Amino acid sequence: MRYILASSSPRRREILERAGFTFDVIPSSVEENTDKTKPSEIVTELAAMKAEDVFRRCRQEDCVVIGADTIVVYRDEILGKPADKAEAYDMLSMLADRTHQVYTGVSLVISKKGRVHTRTFCESTDVTFCPICKEDLRAYVETGDPLDKAGAYGIQGPFAIHVKCISGDYHNVVGLPICRLYQELLTEYASPLSER
Amino acid sequence: MRYILASSSPRRREILERAGFTFDVIPSSVEENTDKTKPSEIVTELAAMKAEDVFRRCRQEDCVVIGADTIVVYRDEILGKPADKAEAYDMLSMLADRTHQVYTGVSLVISKKGRVHTRTFCESTDVTFCPICKEDLRAYVETGDPLDKAGAYGIQGPFAIHVKCISGDYHNVVGLPICRLYQELLTEYASPLSER
Repeated sequence: MRYILASSSPRRREILERAGFTFDVIPSSVEENTDKTKPSEIVTELAAMKAEDVFRRCRQEDCVVIGADTIVVYRDEILGKPADKAEAYDMLSMLADRTHQVYTGVSLVISKKGRVHTRTFCESTDVTFCPICKEDLRAYVETGDPLDKAGAYGIQGPFAIHVKCISGDYHNVVGLPICRLYQELLTEYASPLSER
Repeated sequence: MRYILASSSPRRREILERAGFTFDVIPSSVEENTDKTKPSEIVTELAAMKAEDVFRRCRQEDCVVIGADTIVVYRDEILGKPADKAEAYDMLSMLADRTHQVYTGVSLVISKKGRVHTRTFCESTDVTFCPICKEDLRAYVETGDPLDKAGAYGIQGPFAIHVKCISGDYHNVVGLPICRLYQELLTEYASPLSER
């Protein structure tokens, strides 16, 4: 079976690789627009748009296209990628010393024995930051690490020193809920990691 | 300031590196024996033994020696590294579809302005596994990944597909509670990552 990751995120690629998947990467080129407002609906819709876009372009027999989208939510505010360092600083100031949620939606377009169907799901993880002093916030923003990440932080990099605890799947915060993904694939295939 | 990691674990090294620490590695050579029975006391005692052993050997001015020890606990059973593949399989069979605790003890020997003192603490993280079929357990044990790891698994590698959720610090499960470590250093130094 052939897996295709419809995302250019190096973090999603690393999670899939470490988990033992072999796959190709074909980033989606859809515009990431939605009129949904509920976090779980936003990420599942965007994930589905990405997966379907890539499937339309490749149209393989017997393949699984994996689309994913991640957002950070604090109270009713939805945080995507910051536009610049100033916005990154503001986002992190708001999240410091508090608990927020990270939502990742995943959509699988599954082409199997001449038929195509879709599986879509969403995972949410609570993340709690320590208090963070201004110097530490500035130093982190200056690294440039926040700019390509929802909520302006990467949990797997230098920002880890500020993440007190999480509740849920860690990899969901990085960008791909690999355990849930594998469990969903288990309902489709007896042995999703077929190369072993 | 000079940091010295008193551990040969490549995972602890990677956590410190990613967090932005510059440090030397001097593995401890103490025998890891203790007559403690409480998980938090076992890991803090072993962490202190490692840090003190390395400090005795290097005796630097103005340095922090970091010792750490990690165990897995399920009910009253304490799981260290498995002796062989058969024991690894048994440990993982016991942990599957259940929640266990990972304890990491950290001991810091701090040499500052001619004085030496110690800071020791322990973090605990709950980890919940999915149900795991025999084929998947066998395939994982055959990779050899469990053999150098407390509880017979590494959360950051191919086993991630079986880890449903955690509650606490992720890096504590990998082997070093980097957030708590940084917060403790903040009470000692205004800017623990002094090279920036």
